[in-house]
Amino acid sequence: MKIGLDVGGTKTDAVAVDDAGAIVGRVRLATGWGPEAVTATVIDAVRALTTHAGVDATSIRSIGIGIPGQVEPGTAKVVHAVNLGVEELDLAAAVEPTLGVPVRAENDVKAAAFGAYALHGGSGSMAYLNLGTGIAAGIVADGELWRGARGTAGEVGHISVDPNGPLCRCGQRGCIEALAGGGAIAERWDRPSVLPVQDVFDAADAGDLFAQELRIGLARGVAAAVRILVLTADVDSVVIGGGLTALGDRLMADVAAELAASAAASPFMLSLQLEQRVELLPAGSAAAALGAALIGAARDPEGVLSRG
Amino acid sequence: MKIGLDVGGTKTDAVAVDDAGAIVGRVRLATGWGPEAVTATVIDAVRALTTHAGVDATSIRSIGIGIPGQVEPGTAKVVHAVNLGVEELDLAAAVEPTLGVPVRAENDVKAAAFGAYALHGGSGSMAYLNLGTGIAAGIVADGELWRGARGTAGEVGHISVDPNGPLCRCGQRGCIEALAGGGAIAERWDRPSVLPVQDVFDAADAGDLFAQELRIGLARGVAAAVRILVLTADVDSVVIGGGLTALGDRLMADVAAELAASAAASPFMLSLQLEQRVELLPAGSAAAALGAALIGAARDPEGVLSRG
Repeated sequence: MKIGLDVGGTKTDAVAVDDAGAIVGRVRLATGWGPEAVTATVIDAVRALTTHAGVDATSIRSIGIGIPGQVEPGTAKVVHAVNLGVEELDLAAAVEPTLGVPVRAENDVKAAAFGAYALHGGSGSMAYLNLGTGIAAGIVADGELWRGARGTAGEVGHISVDPNGPLCRCGQRGCIEALAGGGAIAERWDRPSVLPVQDVFDAADAGDLFAQELRIGLARGVAAAVRILVLTADVDSVVIGGGLTALGDRLMADVAAELAASAAASPFMLSLQLEQRVELLPAGSAAAALGAALIGAARDPEGVLSRG
Repeated sequence: MKIGLDVGGTKTDAVAVDDAGAIVGRVRLATGWGPEAVTATVIDAVRALTTHAGVDATSIRSIGIGIPGQVEPGTAKVVHAVNLGVEELDLAAAVEPTLGVPVRAENDVKAAAFGAYALHGGSGSMAYLNLGTGIAAGIVADGELWRGARGTAGEVGHISVDPNGPLCRCGQRGCIEALAGGGAIAERWDRPSVLPVQDVFDAADAGDLFAQELRIGLARGVAAAVRILVLTADVDSVVIGGGLTALGDRLMADVAAELAASAAASPFMLSLQLEQRVELLPAGSAAAALGAALIGAARDPEGVLSRG
């Protein structure tokens, strides 16, 4: 049995995956803050799979952990997981003595990309576009994750697509993340809310002009990211995941309208058939935890999933 | 001996490459117009290498041809080579009976990418950004050309980076090619000239405001392409080639200034060290013909160089 964890800023999603690649158990629990609490969360999640999801502890062969930070390839060494209060943490050193199983970590977007690719059939090429507080993508082709040379592969969020666009927290103007990142939209909307982007959509429906501007910007940013991924890496499909996918069809309809508008203006864009190549991951998908499980079980300590 | 040809719109560059990968002979001749004349050019170029560059005809083992059109991977079947007056041509069927050596073709930008990668040391990852009439890129990592799923890998020229930018011939606004393509710049400059982009640079130096606008747009477009290639594929380096490289340091100084401006505004962009990762191919480089020779000699009829 392979265990996969998606350690998010608020919740940790854990799955057990059998030899055929099927998810046979799943639990979710709150994520702790700081290196010690994150370590405890990982241990608790694995134990919860055995106590609450019927996973035989002796059958566990590997643990893979997706985490929002930079991970040294082929290891479980995490740095700059700022949303978890973790500056530096070797998850293998922290949890292997207790759990007695090899542990490997991966950046959460890369893990989700790998999991989405497996869910998507596991062949051809795919980009996973994560729409959350920030925006980033992972590219998988022929079963391999494109890692890139210096850790910025898929960082499409900080590509500027409008020199007069909103200021991005990175310092540039008109970045895709400044237009379409959940964090940037919430900041510009600037009203107390649990689900600010959903509020923006509701307010836009009710006729609020600023909300409509923000909503159009979101769709433009996502459509730009899709075009960039297809025109640079020429992936077969772009699968969208992350927190903003809770908006479901409301989000997809806006993005499809943006893609249709550029296809109407440009025979070249029309020929790309982008609308047919974009999909939304179902809400509650276990893609990230599944991807972490697959990466955790990969035999080659570094090479299998690396490229670039 | 491997023969490589870069069949351009006006000239064909032909090289002979020995087993060690060194160029041991080179000739250039005018390219004919239409399928029969292009076929004759290929045959003439190979014969010229034997008669004028000391290449022993019996030592030739393979011929690779880079050509501005779409090529079916692993074959010599070319379609839509519009700049050559060729709608469809199987170069293997056309020249193998006469030359008696296996022939393979490749899109010219992809061939140049592969050749630039070999000249660059042949390791790590690299994007080749071709600045000519149009703009396109080729990505090479770990010795393999990234082909993509549907033939649009590296088509960064038609990514819009400014919704209010100039209209592109593709129908969109603010495409990188509309800003930085030699064809688009010549069309907007609209004055009779043999070297319109050089005229624009000269006029900009002399104080012409419209020329200055065009010149800034060129640098912005190229800088945007560099950022997109690094933030999507995370290549180690971006090597710039194509006709506009005749501008040499004048072009590079402008591009470096654009990259420096975004690095000054954004610590994230600064961390990418883009200025140090961009290089210009020397004028007169044989990269495209060399790449064609290497692709022509690849044993695997399809797989070796394909990915995505």
